[in-house]
Amino acid sequence: MAVQELVSRALAHDVRAVSRLISIVEDRREGFEEVYASIYPHTGKAHVIGVTGPPGSGKSTFVDKMALEYRAAGRTVGVVAVDPTSPFSGGALLGDRLRMQRHALDEGVFIRSMGTRGRLGGLSTATSGAVDVLDAAGFDVVLIETVGVGQSEVEIASLADTVILIQVPGLGDDIQVIKAGIMEIGDVFVVNKKDRPGVERVVAEIKMALDLSAPGGHPEGGADRDADRRQWRPPILMTMAESGEGVAEVVEACAAHLEHLGGAGLMERRLRRARAETMEIVSQRIWRGLRERPDARQEAERLAAAIAERRIDPYSAAIDLYKLLISAESARG
Amino acid sequence: MAVQELVSRALAHDVRAVSRLISIVEDRREGFEEVYASIYPHTGKAHVIGVTGPPGSGKSTFVDKMALEYRAAGRTVGVVAVDPTSPFSGGALLGDRLRMQRHALDEGVFIRSMGTRGRLGGLSTATSGAVDVLDAAGFDVVLIETVGVGQSEVEIASLADTVILIQVPGLGDDIQVIKAGIMEIGDVFVVNKKDRPGVERVVAEIKMALDLSAPGGHPEGGADRDADRRQWRPPILMTMAESGEGVAEVVEACAAHLEHLGGAGLMERRLRRARAETMEIVSQRIWRGLRERPDARQEAERLAAAIAERRIDPYSAAIDLYKLLISAESARG
Repeated sequence: MAVQELVSRALAHDVRAVSRLISIVEDRREGFEEVYASIYPHTGKAHVIGVTGPPGSGKSTFVDKMALEYRAAGRTVGVVAVDPTSPFSGGALLGDRLRMQRHALDEGVFIRSMGTRGRLGGLSTATSGAVDVLDAAGFDVVLIETVGVGQSEVEIASLADTVILIQVPGLGDDIQVIKAGIMEIGDVFVVNKKDRPGVERVVAEIKMALDLSAPGGHPEGGADRDADRRQWRPPILMTMAESGEGVAEVVEACAAHLEHLGGAGLMERRLRRARAETMEIVSQRIWRGLRERPDARQEAERLAAAIAERRIDPYSAAIDLYKLLISAESARG
Repeated sequence: MAVQELVSRALAHDVRAVSRLISIVEDRREGFEEVYASIYPHTGKAHVIGVTGPPGSGKSTFVDKMALEYRAAGRTVGVVAVDPTSPFSGGALLGDRLRMQRHALDEGVFIRSMGTRGRLGGLSTATSGAVDVLDAAGFDVVLIETVGVGQSEVEIASLADTVILIQVPGLGDDIQVIKAGIMEIGDVFVVNKKDRPGVERVVAEIKMALDLSAPGGHPEGGADRDADRRQWRPPILMTMAESGEGVAEVVEACAAHLEHLGGAGLMERRLRRARAETMEIVSQRIWRGLRERPDARQEAERLAAAIAERRIDPYSAAIDLYKLLISAESARG
């Protein structure tokens, strides 16, 4: 099927076409730039929500329940589940299938997993691409689910319009994510598995961390991530994702956050995502250019050998390679 | 103190100088290229070992016990603990101090944490820099400890000479890391907390995964990561890091793996690290160039706004920015 035909069908919410377009964008198949240029003008309507939390916090179940909640309100939901430990991609994994079954025959829910996309941050552009396809296809809400441990995974979630941080009582210190670096990206805090012992402590710790990050440490202030956060005090909500208890309140809080952001706040978030995305794509382009040029590849290989044998240090080698790349590319015009 | 003076002291194993050099390299302070060029010829002697596993697997305790084991054998140990959830860096964190106390007054053990280094993979070059400083300073073994969940963290560990993958019984499926993508990087498998129920299942699962990844699926083969793996069947060892039980065997297995690698295998590993490092540094350099040029920065900002407003798609914007960058840099000569 021609790319334009697929795009037309996806824009009309044909889930099979959506699935194929995501694969094209994800794997950078031929024509993916055309897909991107065609769908992009139709994006920007979905509320993109990042959901992140430590392993074992019940993220997937929580996300599934959020999807049900949105469906009950008549809204369609796309889910992009980022799983950096999986080498697979291209959708329709066993996991996706099992999760889809919970939403059986409901074309209003679409779930797609992103596996490892090779090195150099390909995962974040693949995720962005999938989000944009779902957005263009008219899904009202797009949930990005990532594990809140890795640096890149946290960054992927932080590029959403609204970020939900899930915590859970009873995880070891090793998994403790209540640290300033991650706290600052949360717009809505969820303490899941609220029947577990230690739930009050987790809530108290989040409150304290939020107080500390408020301007002047004032308890009624908000975190200092950016202007739109100054008046927003992230709510802390308790849930039982298994039963769905409390999930409706989280959905409400997300709507309240979107309203709070308003046009200017939303634009600020999306500018940040645009900056990160452009930088990422330019980097990838540079490396593609390098790989495609035999002389540059050869020089890169020669330098790698010199580094491995300690005849040159990586920084000096990088300068050589950089100069070669610039002159080769500029000669090409 | 002048950089050269610091370098001389670090090469003579002065831990205070080592600590300051790591800070210079980590924060890219003035003179860091000079530091790198000075220390790099002295690197390549340490056995660099990556240790990775899911949160809650007892990595830190395990790494501390490995350090004790090496010390008992008269060898010095540097540890670089990568903690992507921490916004702090620059060493001497509370955590480092607590851990150092277990090796009180022993100048043969040096522990340094790496916090989040901002975006664009700064964490991996910061980690590499710290490893190189410790290597040059004469530490016999350098352990890189990373959480085995995030894509970038796994990659950081995978650039070591030997990679230890820790598993632990009784973690939920969410934390299950026994997947082909991660299995392939392991040279030595450790099942920690072996007194927990389910230990046999974890061992069986690892065995099965190793069998599957062996060439032709033959149980006696090795994984197909690269040539040096074809004859190496990764051992599966059980430990109790708390008591230190089984850790000596892991140290032995690492030595056996290094011997197995031999000169050619080691060079292959180090070539891979050199390639990844050079690419990373060139990327960073390109972005520094962009940030330092007002015209490029302005254009990048204009394009980001156009993307956020859906007037241009990220791929088309990236091409514009790429061309500007190349022509600006090539004009500079």
